[in-house]
Amino acid sequence: MKSYREELWFSTPERRGYLNITGQVEAALARSGIQEGMILVNAMHITASVYINDDEPGLLSDFDAFLEQLAPFDPSPQRYRHNRTGEDNGDAHLKRQVMGREVVVAVTDGRLDFGPWEQIFYAEFDGRRRKRVLVKIIGD
Amino acid sequence: MKSYREELWFSTPERRGYLNITGQVEAALARSGIQEGMILVNAMHITASVYINDDEPGLLSDFDAFLEQLAPFDPSPQRYRHNRTGEDNGDAHLKRQVMGREVVVAVTDGRLDFGPWEQIFYAEFDGRRRKRVLVKIIGD
Amino acid sequence: MKSYREELWFSTPERRGYLNITGQVEAALARSGIQEGMILVNAMHITASVYINDDEPGLLSDFDAFLEQLAPFDPSPQRYRHNRTGEDNGDAHLKRQVMGREVVVAVTDGRLDFGPWEQIFYAEFDGRRRKRVLVKIIGD
Repeated sequence: MKSYREELWFSTPERRGYLNITGQVEAALARSGIQEGMILVNAMHITASVYINDDEPGLLSDFDAFLEQLAPFDPSPQRYRHNRTGEDNGDAHLKRQVMGREVVVAVTDGRLDFGPWEQIFYAEFDGRRRKRVLVKIIGD
Repeated sequence: MKSYREELWFSTPERRGYLNITGQVEAALARSGIQEGMILVNAMHITASVYINDDEPGLLSDFDAFLEQLAPFDPSPQRYRHNRTGEDNGDAHLKRQVMGREVVVAVTDGRLDFGPWEQIFYAEFDGRRRKRVLVKIIGD
Repeated sequence: MKSYREELWFSTPERRGYLNITGQVEAALARSGIQEGMILVNAMHITASVYINDDEPGLLSDFDAFLEQLAPFDPSPQRYRHNRTGEDNGDAHLKRQVMGREVVVAVTDGRLDFGPWEQIFYAEFDGRRRKRVLVKIIGD
Protein backbone atom coordinates (compact mmCIF):
# COMPACT_ATOMS: atom_id res chain seq x y z
CA MET A 1 0.00 0.00 0.00
CA LYS A 2 1.25 3.46 -0.89
CA SER A 3 0.36 6.65 0.93
CA TYR A 4 0.75 10.30 0.07
CA ARG A 5 0.23 13.50 2.09
CA GLU A 6 0.03 17.12 1.05
CA GLU A 7 -1.20 20.32 2.62
CA LEU A 8 -3.05 23.02 0.68
CA TRP A 9 -3.05 26.57 2.07
CA PHE A 10 -5.79 29.14 1.60
CA SER A 11 -6.52 32.68 2.72
CA THR A 12 -9.86 34.27 1.86
CA PRO A 13 -10.10 38.09 1.71
CA GLU A 14 -13.51 38.11 3.43
CA ARG A 15 -14.74 36.38 6.57
CA ARG A 16 -16.59 33.81 4.45
CA GLY A 17 -15.67 32.34 1.08
CA TYR A 18 -16.22 29.28 -1.12
CA LEU A 19 -13.25 28.09 -3.20
CA ASN A 20 -13.29 25.35 -5.84
CA ILE A 21 -10.17 23.32 -5.00
CA THR A 22 -10.78 20.39 -7.37
CA GLY A 23 -7.79 21.25 -9.55
CA GLN A 24 -5.42 21.36 -6.58
CA VAL A 25 -6.67 18.01 -5.31
CA GLU A 26 -6.30 16.48 -8.79
CA ALA A 27 -2.72 17.79 -8.96
CA ALA A 28 -1.91 16.22 -5.58
CA LEU A 29 -3.38 12.92 -6.79
CA ALA A 30 -1.24 13.06 -9.94
CA ARG A 31 1.89 13.69 -7.83
CA SER A 32 1.04 10.70 -5.62
CA GLY A 33 1.14 8.24 -8.50
CA ILE A 34 -1.67 6.26 -6.84
CA GLN A 35 -4.04 4.57 -9.32
CA GLU A 36 -6.55 2.75 -7.09
CA GLY A 37 -7.58 3.72 -3.58
CA MET A 38 -9.20 6.48 -1.58
CA ILE A 39 -8.46 10.14 -1.04
CA LEU A 40 -9.36 12.07 2.08
CA VAL A 41 -9.63 15.86 1.88
CA ASN A 42 -10.32 17.60 5.19
CA ALA A 43 -10.19 21.04 6.70
CA MET A 44 -7.47 21.14 9.38
CA HIS A 45 -9.29 24.00 11.10
CA ILE A 46 -12.59 23.81 12.94
CA THR A 47 -14.24 26.87 11.40
CA ALA A 48 -13.97 25.66 7.79
CA SER A 49 -15.43 22.84 5.70
CA VAL A 50 -14.56 20.71 2.72
CA TYR A 51 -17.62 19.60 0.76
CA ILE A 52 -18.66 18.44 -2.70
CA ASN A 53 -21.35 20.15 -4.72
CA ASP A 54 -21.91 22.19 -7.88
CA ASP A 55 -19.74 25.16 -8.95
CA GLU A 56 -22.51 27.64 -9.72
CA PRO A 57 -22.34 31.19 -8.30
CA GLY A 58 -26.05 31.35 -7.46
CA LEU A 59 -25.78 28.13 -5.49
CA LEU A 60 -22.77 29.39 -3.51
CA SER A 61 -24.87 32.43 -2.63
CA ASP A 62 -27.74 30.13 -1.59
CA PHE A 63 -25.42 28.11 0.66
CA ASP A 64 -24.16 31.29 2.30
CA ALA A 65 -27.68 32.64 2.89
CA PHE A 66 -28.85 29.28 4.24
CA LEU A 67 -25.97 29.03 6.71
CA GLU A 68 -26.32 32.65 7.78
CA GLN A 69 -30.00 32.04 8.49
CA LEU A 70 -29.27 28.91 10.54
CA ALA A 71 -26.35 30.36 12.53
CA PRO A 72 -26.01 34.13 11.96
CA PHE A 73 -22.69 35.89 12.47
CA ASP A 74 -22.90 37.64 15.85
CA PRO A 75 -19.67 38.56 17.65
CA SER A 76 -21.52 39.54 20.84
CA PRO A 77 -21.33 37.22 23.86
CA GLN A 78 -25.14 36.99 24.03
CA ARG A 79 -26.03 34.64 21.19
CA TYR A 80 -23.07 32.26 21.30
CA ARG A 81 -21.47 31.24 24.59
CA HIS A 82 -18.28 30.45 22.71
CA ASN A 83 -17.91 34.20 22.15
CA ARG A 84 -17.70 34.74 25.93
CA THR A 85 -14.14 33.41 25.65
CA GLY A 86 -13.15 36.49 23.64
CA GLU A 87 -13.71 34.77 20.29
CA ASP A 88 -16.11 36.18 17.70
CA ASN A 89 -16.52 33.04 15.57
CA GLY A 90 -19.17 30.96 17.36
CA ASP A 91 -21.28 31.03 14.21
CA ALA A 92 -18.39 29.64 12.14
CA HIS A 93 -18.16 26.48 14.28
CA LEU A 94 -21.87 25.82 13.71
CA LYS A 95 -21.75 26.53 9.97
CA ARG A 96 -18.84 24.14 9.62
CA GLN A 97 -20.79 21.33 11.31
CA VAL A 98 -23.68 21.72 8.86
CA MET A 99 -21.39 21.64 5.81
CA GLY A 100 -19.02 18.96 7.15
CA ARG A 101 -15.29 18.64 7.79
CA GLU A 102 -14.16 16.24 5.09
CA VAL A 103 -14.86 14.31 1.94
CA VAL A 104 -13.64 10.85 0.94
CA VAL A 105 -13.42 10.25 -2.80
CA ALA A 106 -12.73 7.05 -4.69
CA VAL A 107 -9.56 6.94 -6.82
CA THR A 108 -10.00 4.83 -9.97
CA ASP A 109 -7.48 4.65 -12.83
CA GLY A 110 -5.50 7.47 -11.22
CA ARG A 111 -8.42 9.91 -11.26
CA LEU A 112 -11.07 11.27 -8.87
CA ASP A 113 -14.03 8.95 -9.51
CA PHE A 114 -16.69 11.63 -9.85
CA GLY A 115 -20.17 12.04 -11.23
CA PRO A 116 -20.76 14.74 -13.87
CA TRP A 117 -21.11 17.79 -11.60
CA GLU A 118 -19.07 16.91 -8.52
CA GLN A 119 -16.56 19.58 -7.51
CA ILE A 120 -14.60 19.86 -4.24
CA PHE A 121 -14.98 23.10 -2.32
CA TYR A 122 -13.18 24.66 0.60
CA ALA A 123 -15.71 26.68 2.59
CA GLU A 124 -14.23 29.31 4.89
CA PHE A 125 -16.34 30.72 7.73
CA ASP A 126 -13.66 32.63 9.65
CA GLY A 127 -11.14 33.74 7.08
CA ARG A 128 -8.71 36.58 6.44
CA ARG A 129 -5.79 34.41 7.56
CA ARG A 130 -3.87 31.43 6.19
CA LYS A 131 -5.52 28.09 6.89
CA ARG A 132 -4.85 24.54 5.75
CA VAL A 133 -6.53 21.60 4.03
CA LEU A 134 -5.05 18.09 4.30
CA VAL A 135 -4.97 15.74 1.32
CA LYS A 136 -4.19 12.12 2.26
CA ILE A 137 -4.24 9.34 -0.33
CA ILE A 138 -3.87 5.62 0.26
CA GLY A 139 -3.88 2.84 -2.33
CA ASP A 140 -1.69 1.27 -4.96
CA MET B 1 -4.29 -4.25 -1.47
CA LYS B 2 -7.40 -5.12 -3.48
CA SER B 3 -9.95 -2.63 -4.79
CA TYR B 4 -13.43 -3.02 -6.21
CA ARG B 5 -15.81 -0.60 -7.88
CA GLU B 6 -19.49 -0.83 -8.71
CA GLU B 7 -22.23 1.62 -9.65
CA LEU B 8 -25.80 1.30 -8.42
CA TRP B 9 -28.57 3.02 -10.41
CA PHE B 10 -31.80 4.38 -8.99
CA SER B 11 -34.84 6.23 -10.27
CA THR B 12 -37.48 7.43 -7.83
CA PRO B 13 -41.05 7.99 -9.07
CA GLU B 14 -41.45 11.19 -7.03
CA ARG B 15 -39.21 14.22 -6.66
CA ARG B 16 -38.06 12.99 -3.24
CA GLY B 17 -37.57 9.44 -2.00
CA TYR B 18 -35.65 7.42 0.60
CA LEU B 19 -34.45 3.97 -0.46
CA ASN B 20 -32.83 1.34 1.76
CA ILE B 21 -29.85 0.16 -0.33
CA THR B 22 -28.13 -1.96 2.33
CA GLY B 23 -28.80 -5.21 0.47
CA GLN B 24 -27.29 -3.90 -2.76
CA VAL B 25 -24.18 -2.68 -0.94
CA GLU B 26 -23.82 -6.04 0.82
CA ALA B 27 -24.09 -7.80 -2.53
CA ALA B 28 -21.34 -5.59 -3.99
CA LEU B 29 -19.16 -6.35 -0.98
CA ALA B 30 -19.69 -10.09 -1.45
CA ARG B 31 -18.73 -9.81 -5.13
CA SER B 32 -15.55 -7.94 -4.18
CA GLY B 33 -14.23 -10.79 -2.08
CA ILE B 34 -12.66 -8.25 0.28
CA GLN B 35 -12.56 -9.37 3.93
CA GLU B 36 -10.89 -6.48 5.77
CA GLY B 37 -10.93 -2.83 4.73
CA MET B 38 -13.23 0.09 4.13
CA ILE B 39 -16.17 0.69 1.85
CA LEU B 40 -17.15 4.09 0.50
CA VAL B 41 -20.72 4.61 -0.70
CA ASN B 42 -21.42 8.03 -2.23
CA ALA B 43 -24.02 9.76 -4.34
CA MET B 44 -22.49 10.65 -7.72
CA HIS B 45 -25.04 13.46 -8.11
CA ILE B 46 -25.17 16.67 -6.12
CA THR B 47 -28.89 16.65 -5.33
CA ALA B 48 -28.90 13.29 -3.56
CA SER B 49 -27.42 11.85 -0.36
CA VAL B 50 -26.20 8.57 1.04
CA TYR B 51 -26.66 8.31 4.79
CA ILE B 52 -27.01 5.72 7.56
CA ASN B 53 -29.97 5.63 9.91
CA ASP B 54 -33.00 3.54 10.90
CA ASP B 55 -35.42 1.97 8.40
CA GLU B 56 -38.69 3.09 9.99
CA PRO B 57 -41.40 4.75 7.84
CA GLY B 58 -42.29 7.38 10.44
CA LEU B 59 -38.65 8.41 10.67
CA LEU B 60 -38.35 8.75 6.89
CA SER B 61 -41.38 11.01 7.01
CA ASP B 62 -39.74 13.02 9.84
CA PHE B 63 -36.55 13.44 7.79
CA ASP B 64 -38.55 14.66 4.84
CA ALA B 65 -40.56 17.16 6.90
CA PHE B 66 -37.39 18.39 8.63
CA LEU B 67 -35.59 19.00 5.34
CA GLU B 68 -38.62 20.60 3.74
CA GLN B 69 -38.85 22.98 6.69
CA LEU B 70 -35.14 23.88 6.48
CA ALA B 71 -35.04 24.31 2.67
CA PRO B 72 -38.54 24.22 1.13
CA PHE B 73 -39.04 23.20 -2.48
CA ASP B 74 -39.59 26.42 -4.43
CA PRO B 75 -38.96 26.44 -8.19
CA SER B 76 -39.31 30.22 -8.41
CA PRO B 77 -36.19 32.34 -8.92
CA GLN B 78 -36.99 34.41 -5.81
CA ARG B 79 -36.01 32.12 -2.94
CA TYR B 80 -33.00 30.35 -4.47
CA ARG B 81 -30.57 32.17 -6.75
CA HIS B 82 -29.58 28.81 -8.25
CA ASN B 83 -33.08 28.71 -9.81
CA ARG B 84 -32.28 31.89 -11.78
CA THR B 85 -30.17 29.63 -14.02
CA GLY B 86 -33.35 27.89 -15.21
CA GLU B 87 -33.02 25.07 -12.65
CA ASP B 88 -35.80 24.32 -10.16
CA ASN B 89 -33.76 22.26 -7.68
CA GLY B 90 -32.02 24.82 -5.47
CA ASP B 91 -33.69 23.24 -2.43
CA ALA B 92 -32.31 19.81 -3.37
CA HIS B 93 -28.69 21.03 -3.19
CA LEU B 94 -29.29 22.35 0.33
CA LYS B 95 -31.12 19.24 1.53
CA ARG B 96 -28.26 17.11 0.24
CA GLN B 97 -25.70 19.11 2.26
CA VAL B 98 -27.65 18.57 5.48
CA MET B 99 -27.92 14.80 4.93
CA GLY B 100 -24.40 14.33 3.51
CA ARG B 101 -22.89 12.93 0.31
CA GLU B 102 -21.28 9.72 1.49
CA VAL B 103 -20.74 7.11 4.15
CA VAL B 104 -17.60 5.15 4.97
CA VAL B 105 -18.20 1.76 6.58
CA ALA B 106 -15.70 -0.66 8.08
CA VAL B 107 -15.43 -4.09 6.45
CA THR B 108 -14.66 -6.85 8.96
CA ASP B 109 -14.72 -10.60 8.19
CA GLY B 110 -16.22 -9.82 4.79
CA ARG B 111 -19.25 -8.01 6.21
CA LEU B 112 -20.43 -4.43 6.83
CA ASP B 113 -19.35 -3.82 10.42
CA PHE B 114 -22.62 -2.35 11.67
CA GLY B 115 -24.39 -1.69 14.93
CA PRO B 116 -27.85 -3.22 15.44
CA TRP B 117 -29.97 -0.67 13.55
CA GLU B 118 -27.62 0.78 10.95
CA GLN B 119 -29.02 0.75 7.42
CA ILE B 120 -27.68 2.56 4.34
CA PHE B 121 -30.10 4.86 2.54
CA TYR B 122 -30.09 6.64 -0.78
CA ALA B 123 -31.98 9.93 -0.36
CA GLU B 124 -33.20 11.51 -3.57
CA PHE B 125 -34.14 15.18 -3.61
CA ASP B 126 -34.51 15.72 -7.38
CA GLY B 127 -35.67 12.41 -8.78
CA ARG B 128 -37.78 11.06 -11.61
CA ARG B 129 -34.66 10.20 -13.61
CA ARG B 130 -31.86 7.62 -13.39
CA LYS B 131 -29.05 8.57 -11.02
CA ARG B 132 -26.02 6.74 -9.67
CA VAL B 133 -24.37 5.71 -6.42
CA LEU B 134 -20.72 4.67 -6.35
CA VAL B 135 -19.51 1.76 -4.21
CA LYS B 136 -15.73 1.61 -3.81
CA ILE B 137 -14.06 -0.97 -1.59
CA ILE B 138 -10.40 -1.21 -0.66
CA GLY B 139 -8.70 -3.80 1.56
CA ASP B 140 -7.52 -7.40 1.52
CA MET C 1 -2.15 -3.87 4.35
CA LYS C 2 -2.85 -4.12 8.07
CA SER C 3 -6.21 -3.57 9.71
CA TYR C 4 -7.28 -3.05 13.30
CA ARG C 5 -10.68 -2.92 14.99
CA GLU C 6 -11.74 -1.78 18.41
CA GLU C 7 -15.01 -0.82 20.08
CA LEU C 8 -15.30 2.00 22.59
CA TRP C 9 -18.27 1.97 25.01
CA PHE C 10 -19.93 5.02 26.52
CA SER C 11 -22.86 5.75 28.80
CA THR C 12 -23.88 9.35 29.44
CA PRO C 13 -25.76 10.20 32.66
CA GLU C 14 -28.11 12.61 30.85
CA ARG C 15 -30.12 12.22 27.65
CA ARG C 16 -27.60 14.36 25.77
CA GLY C 17 -23.83 14.64 26.25
CA TYR C 18 -20.64 15.57 24.40
CA LEU C 19 -17.53 13.53 25.23
CA ASN C 20 -14.00 14.23 24.03
CA ILE C 21 -12.76 10.76 22.96
CA THR C 22 -9.52 11.82 21.27
CA GLY C 23 -7.36 10.10 23.89
CA GLN C 24 -9.18 6.79 23.50
CA VAL C 25 -8.84 6.93 19.71
CA GLU C 26 -5.13 7.75 20.01
CA ALA C 27 -4.68 4.78 22.34
CA ALA C 28 -6.40 2.46 19.84
CA LEU C 29 -4.14 3.79 17.08
CA ALA C 30 -1.06 3.12 19.21
CA ARG C 31 -2.23 -0.45 19.88
CA SER C 32 -2.74 -1.00 16.13
CA GLY C 33 0.89 -0.30 15.30
CA ILE C 34 -0.23 1.28 12.02
CA GLN C 35 1.99 4.16 10.86
CA GLU C 36 0.41 5.30 7.56
CA GLY C 37 -3.22 4.97 6.58
CA MET C 38 -6.70 6.06 7.55
CA ILE C 39 -8.79 5.70 10.66
CA LEU C 40 -12.59 5.56 10.68
CA VAL C 41 -14.42 6.45 13.89
CA ASN C 42 -18.19 6.01 13.75
CA ALA C 43 -21.16 5.80 16.06
CA MET C 44 -22.63 2.28 15.89
CA HIS C 45 -26.00 3.67 17.01
CA ILE C 46 -28.31 5.89 15.00
CA THR C 47 -29.06 8.44 17.71
CA ALA C 48 -25.44 9.46 18.30
CA SER C 49 -22.70 11.20 16.32
CA VAL C 50 -18.93 11.28 16.05
CA TYR C 51 -17.63 14.66 14.96
CA ILE C 52 -14.49 16.81 15.10
CA ASN C 53 -14.45 20.31 16.55
CA ASP C 54 -13.07 22.38 19.43
CA ASP C 55 -13.12 21.27 23.08
CA GLU C 56 -14.54 24.44 24.64
CA PRO C 57 -17.47 24.25 27.07
CA GLY C 58 -19.26 27.29 25.66
CA LEU C 59 -19.13 25.79 22.19
CA LEU C 60 -20.55 22.48 23.41
CA SER C 61 -23.41 24.47 24.93
CA ASP C 62 -23.85 26.31 21.61
CA PHE C 63 -24.02 23.02 19.70
CA ASP C 64 -26.63 21.71 22.10
CA ALA C 65 -28.79 24.85 21.87
CA PHE C 66 -28.47 24.88 18.06
CA LEU C 67 -29.58 21.26 17.74
CA GLU C 68 -32.39 21.68 20.25
CA GLN C 69 -33.66 24.64 18.24
CA LEU C 70 -33.52 22.70 14.96
CA ALA C 71 -35.09 19.50 16.31
CA PRO C 72 -36.48 19.96 19.84
CA PHE C 73 -36.87 17.00 22.18
CA ASP C 74 -40.57 16.11 22.18
CA PRO C 75 -41.62 12.60 23.24
CA SER C 76 -45.22 13.16 22.13
CA PRO C 77 -46.44 11.44 18.95
CA GLN C 78 -47.52 14.79 17.45
CA ARG C 79 -44.26 16.38 16.35
CA TYR C 80 -42.31 13.29 15.26
CA ARG C 81 -44.04 10.40 13.53
CA HIS C 82 -41.22 8.13 14.68
CA ASN C 83 -42.57 8.56 18.21
CA ARG C 84 -45.87 6.96 17.14
CA THR C 85 -43.97 3.66 17.27
CA GLY C 86 -43.65 4.01 21.05
CA GLU C 87 -40.19 5.60 20.82
CA ASP C 88 -39.47 9.02 22.35
CA ASN C 89 -36.24 9.76 20.44
CA GLY C 90 -37.36 11.14 17.07
CA ASP C 91 -35.41 14.32 17.79
CA ALA C 92 -32.22 12.32 18.40
CA HIS C 93 -32.28 10.80 14.91
CA LEU C 94 -32.51 14.28 13.39
CA LYS C 95 -29.80 15.77 15.61
CA ARG C 96 -27.48 12.91 14.67
CA GLN C 97 -27.95 13.61 10.94
CA VAL C 98 -26.96 17.26 11.38
CA MET C 99 -23.80 16.38 13.34
CA GLY C 100 -22.88 13.31 11.26
CA ARG C 101 -22.22 9.62 11.91
CA GLU C 102 -18.49 9.33 11.40
CA VAL C 103 -15.12 10.93 10.87
CA VAL C 104 -12.21 9.72 8.75
CA VAL C 105 -8.79 10.90 9.90
CA ALA C 106 -5.42 10.56 8.20
CA VAL C 107 -2.77 8.53 10.03
CA THR C 108 0.75 9.86 9.45
CA ASP C 109 3.88 8.68 11.30
CA GLY C 110 1.66 6.69 13.65
CA ARG C 111 -0.35 9.70 14.79
CA LEU C 112 -3.71 11.35 14.09
CA ASP C 113 -2.81 13.93 11.44
CA PHE C 114 -4.65 16.87 12.99
CA GLY C 115 -4.67 20.63 12.80
CA PRO C 116 -4.06 22.62 16.00
CA TRP C 117 -7.58 22.47 17.52
CA GLU C 118 -9.08 19.29 16.12
CA GLN C 119 -10.58 17.00 18.77
CA ILE C 120 -12.84 13.96 18.26
CA PHE C 121 -16.17 14.02 20.08
CA TYR C 122 -18.86 11.45 20.76
CA ALA C 123 -22.21 13.25 20.81
CA GLU C 124 -25.02 11.38 22.53
CA PHE C 125 -28.62 12.37 21.85
CA ASP C 126 -30.42 9.45 23.53
CA GLY C 127 -28.20 8.35 26.36
CA ARG C 128 -28.47 6.82 29.81
CA ARG C 129 -27.47 3.43 28.45
CA ARG C 130 -24.30 1.79 27.12
CA LYS C 131 -23.61 2.52 23.45
CA ARG C 132 -20.70 1.85 21.14
CA VAL C 133 -18.26 3.62 18.83
CA LEU C 134 -16.27 1.66 16.24
CA VAL C 135 -12.63 2.43 15.52
CA LYS C 136 -11.34 0.81 12.32
CA ILE C 137 -7.83 1.47 11.05
CA ILE C 138 -6.29 0.37 7.76
CA GLY C 139 -2.77 0.99 6.50
CA ASP C 140 0.80 -0.17 6.99
